[in-house]
Amino acid sequence: MRGRASPRAPVTDSEFDIIASIFAPLSKGASGAFSLTDDAAALPSGDYIVTADMMIEGVHFLKSDPLDLVARKLLRVNLSDLAAKGAKPIGYLLTCAWPAAAKRADIELFADGLAVDQETYRVALYGGDTTRHSAAGAPLTLSATFFGAAPRQGMVTRAGAAPGDDLYVSGTIGDAGLGLAALQKSEKFSPAAREFLVCRYRLPDPRITLGGALAGFASAAIDVSDGLLADAGHIAETSRCAITIAAESIPLSPPARSWLDRQIDKNAAYGRLASFGDDYEILFAAPPRARRAIEMAATVSKTPVVRIGAAARGEGVRLLDGSGREITVDESGFDHFSRR
Amino acid sequence: MRGRASPRAPVTDSEFDIIASIFAPLSKGASGAFSLTDDAAALPSGDYIVTADMMIEGVHFLKSDPLDLVARKLLRVNLSDLAAKGAKPIGYLLTCAWPAAAKRADIELFADGLAVDQETYRVALYGGDTTRHSAAGAPLTLSATFFGAAPRQGMVTRAGAAPGDDLYVSGTIGDAGLGLAALQKSEKFSPAAREFLVCRYRLPDPRITLGGALAGFASAAIDVSDGLLADAGHIAETSRCAITIAAESIPLSPPARSWLDRQIDKNAAYGRLASFGDDYEILFAAPPRARRAIEMAATVSKTPVVRIGAAARGEGVRLLDGSGREITVDESGFDHFSRR
Repeated sequence: MRGRASPRAPVTDSEFDIIASIFAPLSKGASGAFSLTDDAAALPSGDYIVTADMMIEGVHFLKSDPLDLVARKLLRVNLSDLAAKGAKPIGYLLTCAWPAAAKRADIELFADGLAVDQETYRVALYGGDTTRHSAAGAPLTLSATFFGAAPRQGMVTRAGAAPGDDLYVSGTIGDAGLGLAALQKSEKFSPAAREFLVCRYRLPDPRITLGGALAGFASAAIDVSDGLLADAGHIAETSRCAITIAAESIPLSPPARSWLDRQIDKNAAYGRLASFGDDYEILFAAPPRARRAIEMAATVSKTPVVRIGAAARGEGVRLLDGSGREITVDESGFDHFSRR
Repeated sequence: MRGRASPRAPVTDSEFDIIASIFAPLSKGASGAFSLTDDAAALPSGDYIVTADMMIEGVHFLKSDPLDLVARKLLRVNLSDLAAKGAKPIGYLLTCAWPAAAKRADIELFADGLAVDQETYRVALYGGDTTRHSAAGAPLTLSATFFGAAPRQGMVTRAGAAPGDDLYVSGTIGDAGLGLAALQKSEKFSPAAREFLVCRYRLPDPRITLGGALAGFASAAIDVSDGLLADAGHIAETSRCAITIAAESIPLSPPARSWLDRQIDKNAAYGRLASFGDDYEILFAAPPRARRAIEMAATVSKTPVVRIGAAARGEGVRLLDGSGREITVDESGFDHFSRR
């Protein structure tokens, strides 16, 4: 279970605390629920992995976002959870609370987006509930529950990282946060860079093939939605180990690299890129003996994977600069930035 | 999939139409989704039945309703869907969008309610998502996806009723609607009657044991949430048959019977009782040769079951008075009443 954040709405400690202290006890007796420490659960037979995510207008998307893209993002953020667990997506249930003033055309546009990505990811709608808010101005509130076939080797959890394991991440980090900043006009980019970054924010690319290929090799995995550092923290906490990340090894897209080059305080800039969230890449740990297998998984899935750090004894997450010194990440700065 | 109604928010034709025309095509290729004509779906292996329902403050519950009872009702309306399909409940995923001003104590009270009914129905929380609205005044919006073990004989759908089948309903009808009317002060009752009816509105009693016992005997089943007539209509439409219901055979609780006795226009009163919704009883069809088996199912599950009508060739639902004449149900009157 996740108190999910977007760059606009970082999860507060109290929300993580609410899950751990109020909701986790309700999973007692369900071994596949992993005490709600994961993004997904395994149904009792072990054949299915399930996950649920909510998206709320004004929290996870902007009122001005086109509804077909909102629909596609709803599918993709859920598919990303399944991907990190090594599951093969099958279908989903959808519940929608529409604003009182929603028009039929709005719902059709939303469904068009679902249709496009159902085709892309070969999933089908299995059911759900559709209703309308009675309060004027109440925001569009969407929830999807996805299920997928569990990998033969069992679900990859957050809990298996061991001291000495390598830490890897797929794709590139920080694009979505910069894309949101572009939309909110707090950062400026060339038209081509802006388009790339906004697209990365609006349409994450769930790493399903990679996730499937990692099952059996990754010791722990999570999709990066709260931010690279925060999600590394989730692995560290659940696996009871420390994690170090070398800032300069974090993979960046050309537009993010060029943005970084323009920043005066490089350490602060790395801190921001690693805190943005909404990347929907897979962050995972694996023992050094699996390096060859990880390389193969990246190749067969045609997904770039980079080694960015390691697990160690201890606790917490440290971001290191080029000379191995810890970078202090200005969380309040992040909050301020992200809430603009 | 269901555009679910409460007595306060009847589903409009356009919402049913939205499901049939916009969402149903998205279930293509998923045989267990039954083209979204049912309240639940079967996962591909056939082992699991899944269903999802949403509850919105101001639509499905009152802002003044205690949050532990809201939590219990959320579980029970979903459990009722599983019951009608003959499934044995296992667990659920929960997504909550809390009002910006929600306090920790609100969330704790809600979780207390979940804990009570998880114990009653032996289900566990498997995961989900918890987040907060950013818009001031945005209503508490809850969604639960339940999964249960499919009955050996396969899920009981809405589609199997055949001309000549008997029509049955469990428990009593109309209590929840009268309970809501009592809360809204549009109807007056003795204190004891009021308490009984309000409890029936706030805490439906999902007929899980009965539902399991009916699998293999019932040809079609649905839980009564939109109202007896509307839900009979769903069976008639999906099974492509007509349904007749004898008003005087509809089972009533003593407080509902006493309310009926006070009404001048008995036919109109029957029409209202059969239109209220939120009963969460099981309405089902079965061939006459199954009468003995149905009686046994009622006995072993200790759940009253009454034969109230029959399926025939044709289409639509007719409510008949004691002399076999059709009762015209004043839908607009229902709407007006229910929206007060």
